Formats: sequence, structure tokens, C-alpha cells
Amino acid sequence: MIRNFRLLIEYDGTNYAGWQRQKHDPTIQGEIEKALETMLGQTVSVIGSGRTDAGVHALGQTANFRCDTRLTSEAFQKGLNSLLNKDIVIKDCKEADIDFHARFNAKGKRYSYRIFNHSVACSIGRQYCWWVRFPLDAEAMQRGADYLIGTHDFKAFEGAGSPKKHTIRTVYQARFRQDGEYLIFDIEADGFLRFMVRNIVGTLISVGISKFQPDDVKRILLSGDRANAGITAPPQGLFLIEVRYE
Amino acid sequence: MIRNFRLLIEYDGTNYAGWQRQKHDPTIQGEIEKALETMLGQTVSVIGSGRTDAGVHALGQTANFRCDTRLTSEAFQKGLNSLLNKDIVIKDCKEADIDFHARFNAKGKRYSYRIFNHSVACSIGRQYCWWVRFPLDAEAMQRGADYLIGTHDFKAFEGAGSPKKHTIRTVYQARFRQDGEYLIFDIEADGFLRFMVRNIVGTLISVGISKFQPDDVKRILLSGDRANAGITAPPQGLFLIEVRYE
Repeated sequence: MIRNFRLLIEYDGTNYAGWQRQKHDPTIQGEIEKALETMLGQTVSVIGSGRTDAGVHALGQTANFRCDTRLTSEAFQKGLNSLLNKDIVIKDCKEADIDFHARFNAKGKRYSYRIFNHSVACSIGRQYCWWVRFPLDAEAMQRGADYLIGTHDFKAFEGAGSPKKHTIRTVYQARFRQDGEYLIFDIEADGFLRFMVRNIVGTLISVGISKFQPDDVKRILLSGDRANAGITAPPQGLFLIEVRYE
Repeated sequence: MIRNFRLLIEYDGTNYAGWQRQKHDPTIQGEIEKALETMLGQTVSVIGSGRTDAGVHALGQTANFRCDTRLTSEAFQKGLNSLLNKDIVIKDCKEADIDFHARFNAKGKRYSYRIFNHSVACSIGRQYCWWVRFPLDAEAMQRGADYLIGTHDFKAFEGAGSPKKHTIRTVYQARFRQDGEYLIFDIEADGFLRFMVRNIVGTLISVGISKFQPDDVKRILLSGDRANAGITAPPQGLFLIEVRYE
């Protein structure tokens, strides 16, 4: 009988070319599919809630796979965790409704971006943040971020060369919080375009160093032109925290 | 004129054979001395507050070096940080009294040991903790740790094969605190024997899983026999947080 399993996955993206299976480079999806093939003796497609890019981390990526098996969800979790490298962890595995589809059923996602804001770099945890040495005006950055809330065309923050047909998204939350030397940006939306969070963070950093004014964020958004936005923040600060389903 | 510089150093010990210079393996002291040699064109000895073992991290190691130079402390900090790998960071460099000696003048040290206590491992930050999958009784562990406070002979917690003449130390603080899934052990003393913190943590873990009773810690301490204590906790959970000087 075909059954459907839902995975909750944490991964350190440092050594991977992102989520999506690739021919030559190691990816998270590829590693999990390889481990499942070892367990099942057959190839299985793992469906992720969406891609994460090379070097991006996840605390709560969600995926599902269907197969004809008598193995329990506990057996899958234990088996995968013993087969996978330590930088990929199956935090949970549950049997799901046969219709559950990690991508099509996703109603929203939450990302966090970690900025280490100090004149001197950190060594501990450097693979989990973007070191910005210039003092940042977090209050101005928050005022800039406030313009993102609501339903907008986010085309200006989409990665060049990967245009989606529909670039309208609804942002529910976009908040900065300070945690010691870290400035952490939490953003939640019904969906994200490629590089959207990193392009937003790069733009808000420009606000933080007064290169842009907070209301430039609104102008950039309305322009729909990637060329107006700031740089793409590096991948290692970005974490997919949670995928929301009904 | 000979001048004396004091360094505050953060390092990720993952890829090093510890603090102390070695012939073949990379060490923190060795890397800093190599960078100083590049800057100064002469060999310089860097004196650390003490060794840390292979794989142990530091947020606040202190060291000093003496040399005849016209370079400023700022120039040393910037120069070293640009020459060193990203896993070693000079957080501060100050000119010190010519007599200052990072080891002889150290009055105390503070270490933290991070335990990730959850049935499933973590991938993010796995290089900065010890994953213990069995539920731990933190209250019992604290009662065990309380026996360490004060002046005792810590011979039972000294690493085998590296006996110091004087094994009496004074522990000022030994406290567990919970931080999400992490159980963190903070310990402060006038000095530590080799492997002392890791042997104490390994022993307290045995208390946490009820293999030992809290007052067994007292008995182990009084026995002076390493064979009675628990296992040596792995290095990657250990952080040298601070070295205290007058």
C-alpha cells in the first residue's frame, strides 16, 4: 500500500549546493533520497516545501515522500538519521494523509536572517551569520522593513535570472530583534521569491548605514526593478525556520 | 624598546590540535606565532593563559607577547585578523605592562560546557555542544556540582597521564542553567587541571542519568582516584569563557 511520510528537517547548509537535487554537487534533497534508496532498495522522490539556496540553513524544512513500505515512521527517522551526515537531521517523521504535498499545501514560511554587527568578526558561529562591521541603525532598518508588510509585488527583490510569473506575495511579519551582538531579522510571508529575503536584508543594511532612507524601501518596492535594491546578503546568515500548513 | 602586548582571543577549536604549539599539527598558538612572524620578520613567543585541548573552543583566551616594535596594538589586531584563518579572531589587543604574563598572572578562569539534551541530535551548532540523548535530571546534577565548591584536591578529575604536582584547586562557581534544549554548565576556579572540566561534566552526566547519586561526587572527590569518576566529556562542548587577572 502506498503511504505518505512527512519529514521535519534541520540542516546546516554550509557544505551543500542547496536543497534541490543536482547531478554533481551534494544537496539536501539528494542526500535524503540517497539514504531512502539505501533503506528501501528503490528510488523515491522527496518533495520539499521549496528550495533553499546553496549555503542556506534550515531549522524546520518540511518534505514528504510516498512509497510502498511496511516500515514505520519511527524506523524512517532512525534509519535516515543513522545514514545521513551529521549536518542533516530528521527532527520528526510522521505518516501523513496520502494527499499531503509539502510544496502545494504550504500556506506560509518563516525565515530568520542573523547579522553579527560588531567591529570585530566572530569565530564561533561565523558559519551562521553575516558579519557587518559598520554600526547599524536598527531603528531605521525597522522603519524600512515596515513598508514590506502586506500584499505587494516583490519583483524588485527577486533574484535576477529566475523570474516567476507571479511575484505578488503577502508579508505578515518583518521584525528586527537584538540578541547580544546579533541583529536578527524575522520575516514571515505566504511565500517567497528566489533570493527575496537576502535581497531585502541587503537593502535594509543599506538603510542601516544611511545609504538608503527607510522610505526608499517603499520606492524600491513600487519600482519593481531589482537594480534599485541593495546587494544580496550572503547565504550563511539565512535560516528557514518554519513552514506553515493548514 | 621591548614592549608587551596582551591579546584577547576567540577561537573555534574544531580544526586545531589545541592551543599549544606542535611540530606537525596546526594549533592556535602556532597560527598566531606564524602570523606574528609574517608581520615582524622575526619569531615571537606567544604566552597563553594556559592550554586548551584539541577541539576545545575559547571566547576569551588571553595571551601576551613581547617584541621590539614600533607597531601599535591596533596594527597588531588588524594585521593578525587579516592573516589568521577565520576560526581565530583577535577580539582585542592592548599594550600591557612589561611584566604582564598571561599564565603567571592569571587569578582564575571561567569555562562553560554546553550539553544539547534532546532525543534527536542537532545539525546547526553540532560542533559547539555534546549531544546527550537521554533525559537528564538537571536538579540532581546541580546537587552533585555543589560538592565541588570550595578548596579541594581535584586529583580524581585530572586526566590520566598528565599528573600535576599540585592538584588542589578552589572552585568558586559550578552552576547548571537551561537554555532551550541546551543544558549549560558554568564553572569558575582559580585554576584547572588537565581534562578537569570534561571529567567533571562526564561524572555529572552519570548523576543526570541516575548511574551515580549526587553525593557520589563527594566520594569521588575524596577518593582522589580518576578511576572512580565518569567518562571524559567530548571537547567540542567546552568553551574557555574568561581568564581573570588582578
